[in-house]
Amino acid sequence: MKNNQQLIKKYLRRFRTELEDNVIPFWMRYSPDKKYGGYFTCLTRTGQVFDDKKYLWLQARQVWMLSKLYNTYQTKRAWLDQAKQGHDFLTRYGMREDGRLYFSLTRDGQPYHFQRKIFSDCFYTIARAEYSRAVDDPSIYNDAVKHFYRIVKMVRHPETIGRPLLSGAGTACSLAVPMILLNVIEELKRPDTAHDFTAIEQECLTRILRHVKPKQKLVLETVSDDGSTMDSPEGRLVNPGHAIEAGWFLLHYARSSGRDDLLPIAANMIDWSFKRGWDKKYGGLYYFLDSGGYSPVQLEWSMKLWWPHCEAIYAFLLLYRLTGKQRYLNTFTQVTEYTFKHFSDPKGGGEWYGYLDRKGTPTHDFKGAPYKGFFHLPRTLLYSILLMQKIVSAY
Amino acid sequence: MKNNQQLIKKYLRRFRTELEDNVIPFWMRYSPDKKYGGYFTCLTRTGQVFDDKKYLWLQARQVWMLSKLYNTYQTKRAWLDQAKQGHDFLTRYGMREDGRLYFSLTRDGQPYHFQRKIFSDCFYTIARAEYSRAVDDPSIYNDAVKHFYRIVKMVRHPETIGRPLLSGAGTACSLAVPMILLNVIEELKRPDTAHDFTAIEQECLTRILRHVKPKQKLVLETVSDDGSTMDSPEGRLVNPGHAIEAGWFLLHYARSSGRDDLLPIAANMIDWSFKRGWDKKYGGLYYFLDSGGYSPVQLEWSMKLWWPHCEAIYAFLLLYRLTGKQRYLNTFTQVTEYTFKHFSDPKGGGEWYGYLDRKGTPTHDFKGAPYKGFFHLPRTLLYSILLMQKIVSAY
Repeated sequence: MKNNQQLIKKYLRRFRTELEDNVIPFWMRYSPDKKYGGYFTCLTRTGQVFDDKKYLWLQARQVWMLSKLYNTYQTKRAWLDQAKQGHDFLTRYGMREDGRLYFSLTRDGQPYHFQRKIFSDCFYTIARAEYSRAVDDPSIYNDAVKHFYRIVKMVRHPETIGRPLLSGAGTACSLAVPMILLNVIEELKRPDTAHDFTAIEQECLTRILRHVKPKQKLVLETVSDDGSTMDSPEGRLVNPGHAIEAGWFLLHYARSSGRDDLLPIAANMIDWSFKRGWDKKYGGLYYFLDSGGYSPVQLEWSMKLWWPHCEAIYAFLLLYRLTGKQRYLNTFTQVTEYTFKHFSDPKGGGEWYGYLDRKGTPTHDFKGAPYKGFFHLPRTLLYSILLMQKIVSAY
Repeated sequence: MKNNQQLIKKYLRRFRTELEDNVIPFWMRYSPDKKYGGYFTCLTRTGQVFDDKKYLWLQARQVWMLSKLYNTYQTKRAWLDQAKQGHDFLTRYGMREDGRLYFSLTRDGQPYHFQRKIFSDCFYTIARAEYSRAVDDPSIYNDAVKHFYRIVKMVRHPETIGRPLLSGAGTACSLAVPMILLNVIEELKRPDTAHDFTAIEQECLTRILRHVKPKQKLVLETVSDDGSTMDSPEGRLVNPGHAIEAGWFLLHYARSSGRDDLLPIAANMIDWSFKRGWDKKYGGLYYFLDSGGYSPVQLEWSMKLWWPHCEAIYAFLLLYRLTGKQRYLNTFTQVTEYTFKHFSDPKGGGEWYGYLDRKGTPTHDFKGAPYKGFFHLPRTLLYSILLMQKIVSAY
């Protein structure tokens, strides 16, 4: 136990350094667009902007992350100021006339791309909820809740969002949808709110559990709406990072709702997906796998991406905290060591590489991109730090 | 010259063996769906079906390829029979009520996925045109022409195909559209037809040439509709295989229309794209590049795909045939040797691997997939064989 305490203290220092000295400074320095507002997220190793478009997943996530840091870590005025300028840009330009969020805008806020998916809407919702807490403005929170109900309606009536429902496609359900909704609810739930999300939480839970297959020790990305499996590349697809992330969303839900019975299920989701996803030859987590043993059809399946590793770091630390089992701490150590060794780049501006080939060599030298912003890495560092502080102080 | 003749004779034998003993037998053996019609295209190294969906790009291309082989290479009854069963399936199930083609169907022909893009429609058109020649049925040809005009209308009025036009997105034009239309016209043009495609050909030509940037010796995948460049990952994107393929489409057009002035332009498109796209360290053509020197945002940018190499093989052989220049034959030899060494797999059923990592190791062990069917490789082998036969007999 004393060794574990020493180990956690060591990682606590390392994570704090990475967050405070490397990651946050990179984004505070290079990301704000001082002319038009919002954030540049496509940034080279030296902070050069190689694409000035505003990607709304990343705009919203950065508002959320800065607000979360301000609300839970340090009340630094500069973080709140940066959250404000992103929030202003997002609310001024992000929404279509019909209330849906765009996927991307030009630098000055003109619509560039719209997707029929719900994810921009989800990140917009958590951004506003967390920002409302930072500035103590209930009207912003209420807008976020209103937007959340709009998303729920779209999920329940997919025919209304403009994607044709085809007779042969059946009722394929993606894990991404209920897991992100559960996370949005985690961000919206407050002791002081009149809103009761219990029914929707239950619905998300039911939907998530359809993807968990105990007999095969497997979490599938896509299943039919009765939970049955589909014998196709989509139906056999495993996305280990996603399943691990869903696992810790579920752990948070289990804690907040007193559902201890869900803990072993969430632990299995994390455990199975990590064991299946870990590359025994070169280390690191595969991006995709086919549970039938075929080559996945995705060209990038064998690449190692920063975010599944981030999700695994926090998930195993949380499992250790909740169960006290040594093997979870060992896996936390294993994945943290691989991840810091291969992704971190303190001499390259501070932010991490995002994309490695199977053998662990970076394939892209940028630090931010259309899908890589100020989110997975600082969230993992922050959540892990907060947890390690509790573990250390509990000894 | 005598050495060149020997060399071409050697490649002629090699290409014939590859086509007749390896590639065609693989598809004739494993691809036909004897129960529901059409073709399985997702096939492992041993011919096992790992996805039984019917992808319409590949259904249509296989009908075209089998018909083309029958029309130009050998009048084998088995090829025509296989073309017929694919053509029957395609025409019975492929089209939506509004006349658009689906992207994919279930095994038994139910609609699975629809894309707003025009490519299923283009491959449907060339499939029917070539098949009509094989069975000598002008009514099928007339249907193909009718469908072609439908595509032209969609291209000229993109607002009608259901994709919102956004103010910030401007008028980005993809090379894919005019190049595929030019190829469709090549397949539709006949001495005996009353249809005159000259005006549309001219339009395609004008659009293609907007992507060619002589000052930078560069072919860009996406430009504004006035030909100006865009400083973004999309605007800087180079797809060497695509540009090389567009180059030989243009060479065919230049020959058929007597436009000798286009020959050096097409040669430059091929030359520049090959030089820029060739990986000087590990060999092979990159899938994508950013002409500004940044990492492309596509995760798979540095992978080596079979089809750009196929396109380069035929393009350089054709350039040699048209100009007699030794350096084109040398490049043909260079790319053919790399390609046969890394992609071909005579002991693995006969068909080639499709996807290699940057260093040339296969990342996927299947031989057919949702985007890899009986098309690029047999087309290259057939067209090259027909050309080499002319070169050899001309000596």
